[in-house]
Amino acid sequence: MIDSDHLATPGKRFHIKKCKTDDTGRFKDKESAQPAIEKLRSKLWDLQERLYAEGKHSVLIVLQAMDAGGKDGAIDHVFHGVNPQGCSVTSFKVPSSLERSHDFLWRHHLAAPQRGMIGIHNRSHYEAVLIERVHNIAPRSVWKHRYEHINNFERILAEEGTLILKFFLHISKAEQKERLEARLADPQEHWKFNPGDLKERELWDDYMAAFEEAIDKTSTRHAPWYVIPADRKWYRNWAISDVIVRSMQRLNMKYPPAVEGLEKIVIK
Amino acid sequence: MIDSDHLATPGKRFHIKKCKTDDTGRFKDKESAQPAIEKLRSKLWDLQERLYAEGKHSVLIVLQAMDAGGKDGAIDHVFHGVNPQGCSVTSFKVPSSLERSHDFLWRHHLAAPQRGMIGIHNRSHYEAVLIERVHNIAPRSVWKHRYEHINNFERILAEEGTLILKFFLHISKAEQKERLEARLADPQEHWKFNPGDLKERELWDDYMAAFEEAIDKTSTRHAPWYVIPADRKWYRNWAISDVIVRSMQRLNMKYPPAVEGLEKIVIK
Repeated sequence: MIDSDHLATPGKRFHIKKCKTDDTGRFKDKESAQPAIEKLRSKLWDLQERLYAEGKHSVLIVLQAMDAGGKDGAIDHVFHGVNPQGCSVTSFKVPSSLERSHDFLWRHHLAAPQRGMIGIHNRSHYEAVLIERVHNIAPRSVWKHRYEHINNFERILAEEGTLILKFFLHISKAEQKERLEARLADPQEHWKFNPGDLKERELWDDYMAAFEEAIDKTSTRHAPWYVIPADRKWYRNWAISDVIVRSMQRLNMKYPPAVEGLEKIVIK
Repeated sequence: MIDSDHLATPGKRFHIKKCKTDDTGRFKDKESAQPAIEKLRSKLWDLQERLYAEGKHSVLIVLQAMDAGGKDGAIDHVFHGVNPQGCSVTSFKVPSSLERSHDFLWRHHLAAPQRGMIGIHNRSHYEAVLIERVHNIAPRSVWKHRYEHINNFERILAEEGTLILKFFLHISKAEQKERLEARLADPQEHWKFNPGDLKERELWDDYMAAFEEAIDKTSTRHAPWYVIPADRKWYRNWAISDVIVRSMQRLNMKYPPAVEGLEKIVIK
C-alpha cells in the first residue's frame, strides 16, 4: 500500500463528507500538470512491459463512481498508450441469468487478471453493496455479510500475487448535473445518455452512504481504496496514474533471466 | 472486402513466393510514412468509438506470422492509443487440457469479440493447420478437413455482424535471423528468446507450404487474408492500419439516435 492524500487509510473511520471533489493537489491547472501526466504515462508503459515479461504479478484496478463520474474517461486517458496485449478491461453490466444463478463474486473471480496482466474492472463486485443495497435487490440480511466476503476474496487474490488498487472517482452532485446536461446538448454524446441515470441521481444520498460504508469496511492494506477528487478530469487522471505507477514500482519487477547457454547459441 | 496490394484475392491461386517481404509501397522511408501513420491512428480511434457506440458490429483481427514476425509489435503500435475498453487481445498459447478436450474451434469461438468490440487474436484457429500440420500433431486425415470448417466458422461470425480481417506478417528468413540475434544481444530482450524458436526455424519451408495452403483455401470475401510485407516494421504497421481503417469505414457506422423525449429532459 502506498501513501497518498487520497488514501482511505485502513483501520481509520472513513467520512465521505470530508473528501473534496474539486481538489487539484499541487497543480494550479491542467497545463501545469501536463508534464507530470506525460511522465507517468511513459513510466506506466515501462512497468506494464516488466509486469508482462516477469509474469509473476497481476494488477487489478477497480473503478467505481456515480454515473458520469468518469470511469470510461479515466480508462481511455490513464491507459492510453499502454500495450493492449497486457491490459484487459471488463465492464460489468446488469448480470446475465447465468451470472445471477451463481454467488455474487463468481463473475468477478472469472474476470480476475492473469499473471502478467493489468485487469481493469469498470464497475466491480462492489455493485453488490452499492446498487443492490440502494435498490433493495439484496436484503440487508444478505448485503451486510458481503463486506467480509469481499475482504476475504481480495485477500486470496492479493496473497497469490495480485496488486489490488481500488478507486472511487468522487464528483459533486453539481458536477454530475453539468456532465449530464453536456450529454444532452451534444448529439454525438446522446448515446451515452441513459434516462435511468436520473433515477439514480435522485438516490444520491443513499449512494453516498453506501459508498461510505463500503470504503470504510473494505479499505485494507492488501486492497486499499483511493478516493479521487474527480471534478477536474485532468487531476483525476493524474491522481489515478500516480497511485498506479508508485504501487507498481513497489513490486520491484525484473526482466526474467536468460535461459542457460544463451551465449553459445548460433542462429543458422 | 477492400482492395489492397497485399490482398490474397479470393478465388485466385495464392503463391507465397510471389509475395515480397521488404516492399514499402509508395513510401521511401519511415519518416515519409509518419504523417500517414499518425492520420490512420486518429481515424482508428474515431472508428473504434463509433463501433462501441453503435454496438452493431464487431471486428476480429487475426495475426499470424513466423516467430519474431512482429505480431506483438504490430499490436503495440497499430492499437497504441485505441481505447482499451473497446479492444480485447487474446494470445493463443499451447492449448490447456480443457481446450484440447474440445474441437479445435471451441476456444477461438469463446474468444470471438462481442458486438462493439475489436478482438485481436495473436495466433488463432489457424494454428490448427500450421503448427499442428507441420509437427504432425494432427494427422493429414484430420487437418485437411479443417479449411472447410474454418471457412464455415468464419462465415457464421461474418453473417452475424463480425468484420474479419486476417493478416499474415511476412518476413524473410534472413530478417528472422537478424531479429533473433538482436534478442540474444540485448539483455532486456532475453526473455523473448525461446530456444524452441530455432527448431521452428529449421522447418521454415514446411511452414511456408502450410501458410500457402491455408491462405489459398481460406481467403474469402467474408474473411480475406492480407499478406503484409513485414521486414520493415513501420511499413507493416502502416499497411495493417490502412486495411483496418478502410475496412471499418465501409461499415458506415453511426452514433445511435437519442432516446425519445431527450429534448424535454430537465436535470434537477
